[in-house]
Amino acid sequence: MNIVNFEQIKKSVVGTTVPKPISGTLSGHAAGEPFDKHVYSKIKKQFPKNTFRQYEYLNDLYRKNPDIIGHQARYELFNSPSVMFLLSRGKNATDQWSLENPFDEKQNDTADILVVNDNFYEIIDIKTRNISKSAQPPNIISAYKLAQVCAKMIDNKEFDKFSINYFEIDWVLEKKKLVCNDAHFSRLFCANPETLYINWSAAMQIQFHVCDLDQNYKGTVKQWAKLYLKHFVSQAKKRADDMIERFVKPFEKYVN
Amino acid sequence: MNIVNFEQIKKSVVGTTVPKPISGTLSGHAAGEPFDKHVYSKIKKQFPKNTFRQYEYLNDLYRKNPDIIGHQARYELFNSPSVMFLLSRGKNATDQWSLENPFDEKQNDTADILVVNDNFYEIIDIKTRNISKSAQPPNIISAYKLAQVCAKMIDNKEFDKFSINYFEIDWVLEKKKLVCNDAHFSRLFCANPETLYINWSAAMQIQFHVCDLDQNYKGTVKQWAKLYLKHFVSQAKKRADDMIERFVKPFEKYVN
Repeated sequence: MNIVNFEQIKKSVVGTTVPKPISGTLSGHAAGEPFDKHVYSKIKKQFPKNTFRQYEYLNDLYRKNPDIIGHQARYELFNSPSVMFLLSRGKNATDQWSLENPFDEKQNDTADILVVNDNFYEIIDIKTRNISKSAQPPNIISAYKLAQVCAKMIDNKEFDKFSINYFEIDWVLEKKKLVCNDAHFSRLFCANPETLYINWSAAMQIQFHVCDLDQNYKGTVKQWAKLYLKHFVSQAKKRADDMIERFVKPFEKYVN
Repeated sequence: MNIVNFEQIKKSVVGTTVPKPISGTLSGHAAGEPFDKHVYSKIKKQFPKNTFRQYEYLNDLYRKNPDIIGHQARYELFNSPSVMFLLSRGKNATDQWSLENPFDEKQNDTADILVVNDNFYEIIDIKTRNISKSAQPPNIISAYKLAQVCAKMIDNKEFDKFSINYFEIDWVLEKKKLVCNDAHFSRLFCANPETLYINWSAAMQIQFHVCDLDQNYKGTVKQWAKLYLKHFVSQAKKRADDMIERFVKPFEKYVN
């Protein structure tokens, strides 16, 4: 299921500009951040009642249910263990939520943008990229978190509750402005799970440039979850073996 | 062997101030960086002819030996494989070094400050810390790099060529200034190697606050190198086992 028409968003974003940030460098995520807000406003224009920042969605959900108190009861409001796992905050934070103490934006939230329709959650993560510099592929999502949610999807037979989608904005600096000169989108569940690169020493993050993500997977989401878990398990075993080869064996002769 | 009198440096730094950076946040390394330069100038005052930034030392060394060309020959100028391993740049960069193309400062250089006397290298790394915020212990050095240098020390029987020392500057923001209100120093080879925490998923970095580093080790540097390698090997094995427990076993039931 797809809610947002990314082709249309792409057309409305390519060619637009945002002011150059006054301070800070032009590397890293921060410089392109205004484009993130830009995409959000475009999508919100398409779906004004269905588009949220993740923290906004949580605040709305708990605000509409003022009698529901405590993390357990609040978690049950999601009606879906897998969506709850991806979108909720920790137990303490959820216990302490109140009208006077709502959530703020948090850097490691799963979604930059959430489009919710008919109990389906389209999770959108925006990646901005200074294409005048070559850079390592960015952190996408924790490979472990993704394994956990795949397990929950299988345990609960939930394969039609959410999708995870990535939107890349390529920009260059021209005079005092950042110009978006291209954009790309790709869907995690359209990528062959075996193509996903896991950087174990970078907080186990899956890393890719959105424009490079394989989109040739043709199976079901249920099959995807199983294939991803197979990939994750085999990569974890491989990393454990690699650690023995690289970090144990060469040094064992010094140890005795 | 100790060259720098850190107690004296501490006295001369506590109570001093640097201007608040105009841009950027007050978290992260950047804000406290002016203090790094501050400590450098204090040490340079004590040892004007012996104090270098790492890149300065390399530039000086190669400049004094204009006939020595190519990475292999330049590496041999160090007269010590372990010091060479810690301080030199990569093969390509070393090949390409010239009077017109000297090295610049590089963020992942081993030493912020180098004090060299009588073929002994005191490596000093400065850690600045905003103590009005609680923060995770910082990255200190790659546990793998340290294992490699320990192996080189043992292979080459070099146990008196260098030391690695850490100097922490605690600061707070007061009006428009950063005030250093305490400082700490500790020596890596005075810490019981078994106390070193290796964060495998954060680029295998050893992490600690300088003020918290154990300083009760009483053995020789040779014993230290062996004990560290023992610790590194056992931690690598443990991490490999943990990966199987956490990332393989819980998901195996989904895979078949």
